[in-house]
Amino acid sequence: MKTPDIQPLRASLASRTVEIADQTRLPGEWKIVSLASVGEAAHAIRTMQVRGAPLIGATAAYGLALALHVDPSDSGLRRAYALLLATRPTAVNLRWALDRVVKAVSSLAAASRADAAWREADAIAEEDVKTNLAIGHHGVALIERLAADGHNPVQILTHCNAGALATLGWGTATAPIYVAHDSNVAVHVWVSETRPRMQGARLTAWELRASKVPHTLIVDAAGALLMQQGRVDLILVGADRVAANGDVCNKIGTYEKALAAQDNGVPMYVAVPSSTIDWTLADGSRMPIEERDSGEILHDVGGEVIAPAGTPVLNPAFDVTPARLLTGLITERGICRPSAENLAEMFPEQQA
Amino acid sequence: MKTPDIQPLRASLASRTVEIADQTRLPGEWKIVSLASVGEAAHAIRTMQVRGAPLIGATAAYGLALALHVDPSDSGLRRAYALLLATRPTAVNLRWALDRVVKAVSSLAAASRADAAWREADAIAEEDVKTNLAIGHHGVALIERLAADGHNPVQILTHCNAGALATLGWGTATAPIYVAHDSNVAVHVWVSETRPRMQGARLTAWELRASKVPHTLIVDAAGALLMQQGRVDLILVGADRVAANGDVCNKIGTYEKALAAQDNGVPMYVAVPSSTIDWTLADGSRMPIEERDSGEILHDVGGEVIAPAGTPVLNPAFDVTPARLLTGLITERGICRPSAENLAEMFPEQQA
Repeated sequence: MKTPDIQPLRASLASRTVEIADQTRLPGEWKIVSLASVGEAAHAIRTMQVRGAPLIGATAAYGLALALHVDPSDSGLRRAYALLLATRPTAVNLRWALDRVVKAVSSLAAASRADAAWREADAIAEEDVKTNLAIGHHGVALIERLAADGHNPVQILTHCNAGALATLGWGTATAPIYVAHDSNVAVHVWVSETRPRMQGARLTAWELRASKVPHTLIVDAAGALLMQQGRVDLILVGADRVAANGDVCNKIGTYEKALAAQDNGVPMYVAVPSSTIDWTLADGSRMPIEERDSGEILHDVGGEVIAPAGTPVLNPAFDVTPARLLTGLITERGICRPSAENLAEMFPEQQA
Repeated sequence: MKTPDIQPLRASLASRTVEIADQTRLPGEWKIVSLASVGEAAHAIRTMQVRGAPLIGATAAYGLALALHVDPSDSGLRRAYALLLATRPTAVNLRWALDRVVKAVSSLAAASRADAAWREADAIAEEDVKTNLAIGHHGVALIERLAADGHNPVQILTHCNAGALATLGWGTATAPIYVAHDSNVAVHVWVSETRPRMQGARLTAWELRASKVPHTLIVDAAGALLMQQGRVDLILVGADRVAANGDVCNKIGTYEKALAAQDNGVPMYVAVPSSTIDWTLADGSRMPIEERDSGEILHDVGGEVIAPAGTPVLNPAFDVTPARLLTGLITERGICRPSAENLAEMFPEQQA
């Protein structure tokens, strides 16, 4: 894999440094911020300097390691865990990564906990790179099949950013796209801008441009029109949490994309590492949906007021797409139709 | 009807003045602009100082009258007609209003054409007020039925602005809402912000606030989530063009709302004056879809860059909602399920 060469997080145990790219500055500026404490790691997740389910998980894992350098006691571990877990409610990778680190360190003596936590965070980050690549290799088959059927370029729509900027490697939804592009399969990506935070316009357009993947930016609502016009061959998105039956919680607007895909016979796949699957949720009915600040809707990117001052706002950041609307899930183990049975078969070790 | 007291266009034959509110300045400022020539009228429509199908039609009619004051010849009439018709491609009321004026003046001597055109424009404007009111009185029955079923408040979602600001009176989609509000039926309106021009956030939120109708602003994609959560009882939108079979061309995002409405059993109605029905189109497959400037998507309201410089953009302003997804059409003559048969029955004089 050649592209992309984008590293939204770098950590070094030798120098005990965690550096992130502040994604709130994109596309204007690639600004590196050092995280020196668990408080700074929590702040980076909460304010979306880092975002994307896998990247949130890895950042939280390093945040726990930073905390244990200062206070490796059981109570210190509990406090840091609670602080980090409360930063964002929807992405389950956050809890998954924190639980992995806790499991790796809790039986150890206090003095060796910080280094062990750091090594576990490193393992999470390294596995994410491999997971991205596996998703890319499984998913590219879908694109190659469309290309073989005469789609030139293969027209792929994505929503939000489930790209290199959301992970440690090639992204989830974007991994098959990057693999196809590197293999000289002609692709073109419709980038859904993703209100209100504009992760499509600010981040996905930025990284596709950096990687020279042809793309066109649209407003979120234009996706359905393009599908109606036969201009979308495939939809690829990521997720923040997947229930055991394949219901998908992802950025607000994903559910509408799935409805339009179904109405127009466009295949839609959700690409996720298995760490995004929440085996404790039987279905999507009880997904925690984060509600964010009204300012994200009342003010534009530059801070100018859009709506009348005092306008009441509701700002849910995610929605739930029922498994019945999706063609498939792409995980590091392969592709399956989303159902409790298929997911259980793909991940037998997760079944009670 | 008490509310609203919003006049986006005032014209006086006595003083030969046409004044509009520049809607690109809202919600910040209610700025009146005088239109002194057909060129200024065309500019006001093209730049969306006036927008909304009925208001575009009335403004174009006055624009033709302004042109005939200067040059009442046949060639002057043809030139002005062509100039105005080319301003916006999708709203059929534009052509309808221009054709009415042409029909009213073309057999007259040149000297009397301008005044006759003005009187026809006045008639179009006065009829629009009556049409709005009739739509309001037909449509309020839907809201009253929901209130009687225990919905308190009745939760109504609307998209874009089909309100007082889009018409000469109470709006199309908003007319039933204003009638209900005036009759003390408790309503609450979910205002879909409507990317990229933000007519929901800038205009609908503004006029509902001015009229003291309870409302909450959401991003476009949140409508589907709210329907899934059972928080929407009714969807009311306007349209820019309706085909003879009831297919509806309206602001981009309307089709997605209809898909979500169908998936969640939420009734969805499109409120239009009959002047919005294009009897020459058998269905929605050949609706002209306006594509607007990339700057509307690349820059925010305040002019700040959102996406990377040079990002390719596609900016379609409308989409087509198939009649099969809609519960009904509300016209000045009543409510019907959208089909060629029902529309033909409601408007027998339009059938060849």
